[in-house]
Amino acid sequence: MNLINKNNKVLIVGLGMLGASYAKALKKNGFYITAVTLDPDDIDYALEKGFIDRGYTMPLPEAISDADIVILALYPKVAIEWIVKNQDNLKSGAFITDVTGIKETVVKSINKILRPDLEFVPAHPMAGKEGKGIVQSDDEIFKYANYIITPTAKNTEEGIKKCEELGKILGFANISRLSIAEHDKVIAFVSQLTHCIAIALMGCDTCKSKNNMENYTGDSFRDLTRIAKINDSLWSELFSMNKKALLEQMDVFEESFNELRKMIENDDIDSMRKLMKKSTKRRTRFDKKQ
Amino acid sequence: MNLINKNNKVLIVGLGMLGASYAKALKKNGFYITAVTLDPDDIDYALEKGFIDRGYTMPLPEAISDADIVILALYPKVAIEWIVKNQDNLKSGAFITDVTGIKETVVKSINKILRPDLEFVPAHPMAGKEGKGIVQSDDEIFKYANYIITPTAKNTEEGIKKCEELGKILGFANISRLSIAEHDKVIAFVSQLTHCIAIALMGCDTCKSKNNMENYTGDSFRDLTRIAKINDSLWSELFSMNKKALLEQMDVFEESFNELRKMIENDDIDSMRKLMKKSTKRRTRFDKKQ
Repeated sequence: MNLINKNNKVLIVGLGMLGASYAKALKKNGFYITAVTLDPDDIDYALEKGFIDRGYTMPLPEAISDADIVILALYPKVAIEWIVKNQDNLKSGAFITDVTGIKETVVKSINKILRPDLEFVPAHPMAGKEGKGIVQSDDEIFKYANYIITPTAKNTEEGIKKCEELGKILGFANISRLSIAEHDKVIAFVSQLTHCIAIALMGCDTCKSKNNMENYTGDSFRDLTRIAKINDSLWSELFSMNKKALLEQMDVFEESFNELRKMIENDDIDSMRKLMKKSTKRRTRFDKKQ
Repeated sequence: MNLINKNNKVLIVGLGMLGASYAKALKKNGFYITAVTLDPDDIDYALEKGFIDRGYTMPLPEAISDADIVILALYPKVAIEWIVKNQDNLKSGAFITDVTGIKETVVKSINKILRPDLEFVPAHPMAGKEGKGIVQSDDEIFKYANYIITPTAKNTEEGIKKCEELGKILGFANISRLSIAEHDKVIAFVSQLTHCIAIALMGCDTCKSKNNMENYTGDSFRDLTRIAKINDSLWSELFSMNKKALLEQMDVFEESFNELRKMIENDDIDSMRKLMKKSTKRRTRFDKKQ
């Protein structure tokens, strides 16, 4: 069953790291791709590399009105504004999805004002790269990765299936459905908390340049802090918009961290080893299935 | 200046992940390698793969008395015991080094009893792999990695230079000297704290199997928890033996983490962005120089 095919015109709004990665993956699959993005240099770059067919710095009617599939690769608040300002120029029946890392605010805001003849199926690709911008884009990041769809009561089964198909075309290995509330809680833990940890680690005075810690570190520290190279405008917005769930998961982590701290303080080797055996066993489940 | 050459006979005590990786690297450089390790299967494996020349399950005099270079690739307490029990069979002038992840207790204990005609130069290779055992061994882990030498007043400049040469032969990119106290503090932060964080993350109830978090995670969480697959007998000993420095660095991290928590709680976007800009800038220093 093909709900999506190469005759569907794709519109990608935002050629950041993720939007451009979507463009690369879809271009390889033969789609005709229009991009709307603020920076004309990004359009030149994408045209030159051949992963879009045309680009606009403004969402002119002629740029967006023929799109069958619209991918909002924007910051959360900008994604909402974009729909408010531009949905009148989208064609009836257009399928819209997004890449936003938090769902509650974004989905509710969009659903409240969305034209009834458009369908918005929210999705969150669990793939990315440290840093930001089009030069960081890479469709290889979708390989073996997870794709989460967060349907609402407004979605049709066909719309959700279309979104699943898009996930498969992009190359994701595992496609799941979660409610918006579940998603925001899950993401607070696996994504936002881990970014908080990385940032907090690099924020420690121990990392001041005078201490030359880079000469003494191994890969464990490098891996833990890779994501401390972070897009600050995006992630401060994500943290703030998912504040309640994130603070809860920060507390869950801190409790676990303090339990371990107590074991170390009390030289409680048995409990440490039990916890390490548990962490070793649990971590095996998270290996990428290649 | 070559203080070490291929005519030097190498003895590796302990064919775990690190000991066997040393053997592989040194074998490639043409050294004659004797291994002493507990499990006869590990000796068979290493002989079959060709990265040792002979192996013994017991430190018999004929196995160890001709060694010019002795590498103790053992757990901290076992390394101390090994010297106590076997140093009488080492030849005069033998050069001894180790791989131990904490230095204070190990070095003081060994130096207290070491024969004056032997030289022990403590070192810590900042390279490793999750998991344990000879099958995990891989001399590629030394490439681009850091090697820390922690000399004491008992060491000669020639002994320290010999150790630096060994680090270069093994393939380390960056070789430093630290005092024992500095080393144990630095390692508490870059190595032990990061392992604590990974274990504490996997210990959270959110990671219980019924929650299927592996279907929703991205690489950030995978990278942060890679080292949660941990050798529990080794690391519980390392944590406990470096308790004071580790607890201090856990507190440093927790303070930084709680500062970030407060920013999120107060929707203090400006402070969050400032911290993220700092973390991005600082993290750049830690990239491997390839």
